[in-house]
Amino acid sequence: MQELDAQHMQRALELAQRGAFSVAPNPLVGCVIVRDGEIVGEGWHERPGEPHAEVYALRQAGALAAAATAYVTLEPCSHHGRTPPCAEALIAAGVKRVVLAMQDPNPLVAGQGVALLEAAGIEVTAGVGQAAAEQLNRGFISRMTRQRPWLRLKMAMSLDGRTALANGKSQWITGSEARQDVHAYRAQAGAILTSARTVMMDQARLTARHAKAERQPLRVVLDRQQKLSPEHDFFAITSPVLRVIDNTAADAKSWPAHVSTLVLPATDKRLPLRTLFNKLAEMEINEVWTECGAELAGALMAAELVDEWVFYMAPKLLGSSSRALLELPPYQDIAQCPELRYESITQLGDDLKICARPQHTSGGAERGEVQS
Amino acid sequence: MQELDAQHMQRALELAQRGAFSVAPNPLVGCVIVRDGEIVGEGWHERPGEPHAEVYALRQAGALAAAATAYVTLEPCSHHGRTPPCAEALIAAGVKRVVLAMQDPNPLVAGQGVALLEAAGIEVTAGVGQAAAEQLNRGFISRMTRQRPWLRLKMAMSLDGRTALANGKSQWITGSEARQDVHAYRAQAGAILTSARTVMMDQARLTARHAKAERQPLRVVLDRQQKLSPEHDFFAITSPVLRVIDNTAADAKSWPAHVSTLVLPATDKRLPLRTLFNKLAEMEINEVWTECGAELAGALMAAELVDEWVFYMAPKLLGSSSRALLELPPYQDIAQCPELRYESITQLGDDLKICARPQHTSGGAERGEVQS
Repeated sequence: MQELDAQHMQRALELAQRGAFSVAPNPLVGCVIVRDGEIVGEGWHERPGEPHAEVYALRQAGALAAAATAYVTLEPCSHHGRTPPCAEALIAAGVKRVVLAMQDPNPLVAGQGVALLEAAGIEVTAGVGQAAAEQLNRGFISRMTRQRPWLRLKMAMSLDGRTALANGKSQWITGSEARQDVHAYRAQAGAILTSARTVMMDQARLTARHAKAERQPLRVVLDRQQKLSPEHDFFAITSPVLRVIDNTAADAKSWPAHVSTLVLPATDKRLPLRTLFNKLAEMEINEVWTECGAELAGALMAAELVDEWVFYMAPKLLGSSSRALLELPPYQDIAQCPELRYESITQLGDDLKICARPQHTSGGAERGEVQS
Repeated sequence: MQELDAQHMQRALELAQRGAFSVAPNPLVGCVIVRDGEIVGEGWHERPGEPHAEVYALRQAGALAAAATAYVTLEPCSHHGRTPPCAEALIAAGVKRVVLAMQDPNPLVAGQGVALLEAAGIEVTAGVGQAAAEQLNRGFISRMTRQRPWLRLKMAMSLDGRTALANGKSQWITGSEARQDVHAYRAQAGAILTSARTVMMDQARLTARHAKAERQPLRVVLDRQQKLSPEHDFFAITSPVLRVIDNTAADAKSWPAHVSTLVLPATDKRLPLRTLFNKLAEMEINEVWTECGAELAGALMAAELVDEWVFYMAPKLLGSSSRALLELPPYQDIAQCPELRYESITQLGDDLKICARPQHTSGGAERGEVQS
């Protein structure tokens, strides 16, 4: 039974994944309806405003849903939002058992879906495939429980930790497979964060050029000193941009409609990054993908906002005159240096992709937050 | 048959490996005698001056060697050295077939062992497990075919490519598993190459502190400017040292017996590294393990002497004020930067071990040299 439960939940998680490029700001959810050991209905949540995973799966199952077991990767909702509550739909369909991977991460409604189901006499098993389900919705969970998006920081570098030559050239340190991987991350992110300096130096457009990209992420550019002008190529692309500036005193330029401006007073010439992240959560951004230089990367790390590092490491050597990866304070002892832990290593073409997590954001702590 | 041959050769290669800490400057060789599908004798070459692998295996097989098949990782020798020729021993024992992984890499004697065997009516199959056998004896092959040792360059660094803090502190960037791995490499190398600067800055002793270490490698220290004095801790350890200096004019110090001096006139204030490597080959050094700083590493790379890079990459971040991995010329374009290719990635404790090869020393080219 436990093994079968895990197997069906695995299928539900696969279905959930299908919404990765389209479902934000909603969570990824998959659902499988099983009757007499056979899958009779499958569904996933594809787009905000469209029916939830359970609804599609129940529709497909039809009358067979009666006395069946439903596997859902997230606790069914109990409130009337843009769609009717899924807990009620499951009850109405007559399912006799619901297996779910995790509770609703929103502490205000967590457990209410389960309570509805149990009140209707349905047997509920929770926590099957929980780690994978939490992984899938890191961003949504982060927004719900920490009021800020999940931040992935991307760095493309050489084996000797350099991001560009002394003359600024960085095209191309990594190969096409690594660059395509970056576009997949961009297409799945709610927002891409960068600095005016990166936009100017790399002529970065920061759009998601990927076959599965359905929509473009919000491009958030930190421009405290207002160095970017509306004429820059970055703004020629009409996907939404959020300029973050220090004050409006000098902001007399006229910006096109797709560019909005957020004013956040700086402290010590630094924009308040944690405040920015709270604002992004309010804007329903689940995941932020960051492409920036050594300075902003160091500042994000110092603010303990980096949840995940994604390094693309080319088997090239650029030498000591080239640009450094990260600006950090001058430590006096190795023990003071920030420590990460490797999460996964993958070869992408000639390059290595190294995913790492800061020691201060352990998966355990995340789960702890969710369950509390 | 082919599958069985590969299987028995695999066993012979495993046996050969047992000499890794003791057999230099001789090659690693393993031998398996098989009769009627069963292994009746096994042997490996353990130490210079002691019997070769075939002799041990034949001894163990005794009368069963008659009409048996012998698997040897290297072409049996045909000349009287410190021990009688193994080809003759195989003939005398009456084996009917010899399977070998590779020819003798010494172009002057290659093929002579096979010729002896075939003249005696023995069937010879060559090239079984050749790639693995060549890998095993990279150093010996390099000395025989290129008149220089195989060079492994070790670098311990942070994720952002730094080898020490600005104040010089580097203890400990990597963890104990990585450091133990370094000691295994040291114990298997014929020589360890370093610079006076590294000896002074890191207080490096460069001895092999490993359970399997039978003997200490020659410690080769480049000291063009004769900055090291006999009182330095480095010389307090009595394992052999080779000082490489520019000229003897200022060398009035009195050195202990275990320290010898090699004078190599410098060009443009650089010691002639290729000449040094030819000298090391003359001294029967098969493999050089290098632990040094950014300057010597860059010079070895520029001289195209690096055959293999071994990076130990700790999941730490040291920041841009820390010491760089490698001094290289200021390139104008990414296409000019040296390219490596990843050979293997292993997790050692918290750290990654990344083995890489320069693009100019492909395995293919090496094999080409051997076979020509």
